[in-house]
Amino acid sequence: MKTLKDIGEHNAIAALTANLKAVGDDCAVLPLDDIYDLVLTSDPLIRNVHFTAEATPEQIGHKAVCRVLSDFAAMGAEPQYLLVNVVAPPEQDFQTLEKIYAEFSNLWKTYGAEVVGGDLAQGPTLELHVFGVGRVPKGTALLRSGAKPGDRIYVTGPLGGSQASGKHLSFEPRLEWAKALRESGLVTSMMDISDGLATDLRHILKASGVGSMLDGSLIPCNGTLEQALYDGEDFELLFTAPPDAEFPMFPTFGKAKQAATQLLPSIGKITDRPEELLLDGAPLAGKAFEHFRG
Amino acid sequence: MKTLKDIGEHNAIAALTANLKAVGDDCAVLPLDDIYDLVLTSDPLIRNVHFTAEATPEQIGHKAVCRVLSDFAAMGAEPQYLLVNVVAPPEQDFQTLEKIYAEFSNLWKTYGAEVVGGDLAQGPTLELHVFGVGRVPKGTALLRSGAKPGDRIYVTGPLGGSQASGKHLSFEPRLEWAKALRESGLVTSMMDISDGLATDLRHILKASGVGSMLDGSLIPCNGTLEQALYDGEDFELLFTAPPDAEFPMFPTFGKAKQAATQLLPSIGKITDRPEELLLDGAPLAGKAFEHFRG
Repeated sequence: MKTLKDIGEHNAIAALTANLKAVGDDCAVLPLDDIYDLVLTSDPLIRNVHFTAEATPEQIGHKAVCRVLSDFAAMGAEPQYLLVNVVAPPEQDFQTLEKIYAEFSNLWKTYGAEVVGGDLAQGPTLELHVFGVGRVPKGTALLRSGAKPGDRIYVTGPLGGSQASGKHLSFEPRLEWAKALRESGLVTSMMDISDGLATDLRHILKASGVGSMLDGSLIPCNGTLEQALYDGEDFELLFTAPPDAEFPMFPTFGKAKQAATQLLPSIGKITDRPEELLLDGAPLAGKAFEHFRG
Repeated sequence: MKTLKDIGEHNAIAALTANLKAVGDDCAVLPLDDIYDLVLTSDPLIRNVHFTAEATPEQIGHKAVCRVLSDFAAMGAEPQYLLVNVVAPPEQDFQTLEKIYAEFSNLWKTYGAEVVGGDLAQGPTLELHVFGVGRVPKGTALLRSGAKPGDRIYVTGPLGGSQASGKHLSFEPRLEWAKALRESGLVTSMMDISDGLATDLRHILKASGVGSMLDGSLIPCNGTLEQALYDGEDFELLFTAPPDAEFPMFPTFGKAKQAATQLLPSIGKITDRPEELLLDGAPLAGKAFEHFRG
């Protein structure tokens, strides 16, 4: 009898969803009307998996919602509504839940995505399951599948050390970046970095049928290059664009283009060798956190 | 320090969502476009809470999805897309998950609601969190808040004993009934019966600011009247309509109106005495399963 531990998270998801119209991107994108596509996503946040007893209620609420908002950013989409299923044991301190919900209200004011429903049920440990509904102008969602040989590779901020620094509990979803990048019309593929650059770039390579060469000296690091490649939970955007495209260091496109004197450096380029990932000319080992094998 | 056990499920939800635009109905209904409203809902299914070790994978998948479909039926709405977060321990037998997902495909063929995404994460016990997205013609969602004094009260099938009979794992969501009832234009309020008639009718009374008198001899029972009032998980529809409205015993409106010789009997009527619930003239005690106090 095979267990989830034998199979691993990514293989299990692939096998279970093989017969379903699951898109394998950060969000599902579905036809809505003549102007917009519907964008849907969901993320679980589980105690002792995604946060520990040291996390504050505000951090728990922040991470639960912002992981979903980061999925919308990854598509260049706009989040609109959220539903939250809370699971908790009977002895759960109620004030913690009140503070988590207060954080939902704060995030609504900042990012415009409102909690409009959900449920509360009894279970063995504290969990939040956040489900997001949003939209993107028809046909403009940024997928993982559009990278082309010659494209340059970019990230929106420094990577690595997110667990140690606490960034994984307090990160800002890159919705402003995402909107500017989508509106630029220059981006060929995009996703958010949740499992580490080395793992997540492979998703783009696989979906696009291309390879890549990374330049280690150009990858922005919080800590070591090893950490930037493998730590995960950075929630920065990873994207590709043609070689003649230029992006300012901050998402100030349109607003203050002339003020953006510094350009975002590319960290590598896309090649025509399917799924080959080179770092400074050598093949990059695949290793990253995976549920059930952790 | 107050815990969830001290406060109870219903009070906890009310307190947590007081500052949010949560509608307190079976689904959230939100503006979508000129033709439709957007309808959203979510339900958790947790091992040892909503099902036991004896339940088959097919039953687990069926109940997880059909609880959500029943929420859509409760609004007269059409479910379109589903996302499923699966939580499981590393030692989870993978074949069980495969069978659960196969049931999702079967239900898609029957009810038209497709699983388009979700996530798989590690946690202490098997859980399915199903999120549903659908629609209803603009302004036609059947809410809990429209019952008026003089209206008659109806249920779409016999109540009680759902746990003992296994109906709670194999029930059919009343989507056909729901569509026919919405299209009739006669229904003033509606919900599905998940916590038992005595508890759920109170939600309609509270939302509508009315009271009710039930006739025990007219309540269709699977077992005793006590079971019909308090067992819960029947997933039949509970609705109200003006006294001159008539409904066939089965949802064959339009199709075969003349064939429906037998009429659905009403089980009571709505009064003008806010939140008063009488059974055969005497006040009905409030008691029902509630999470955290079970």
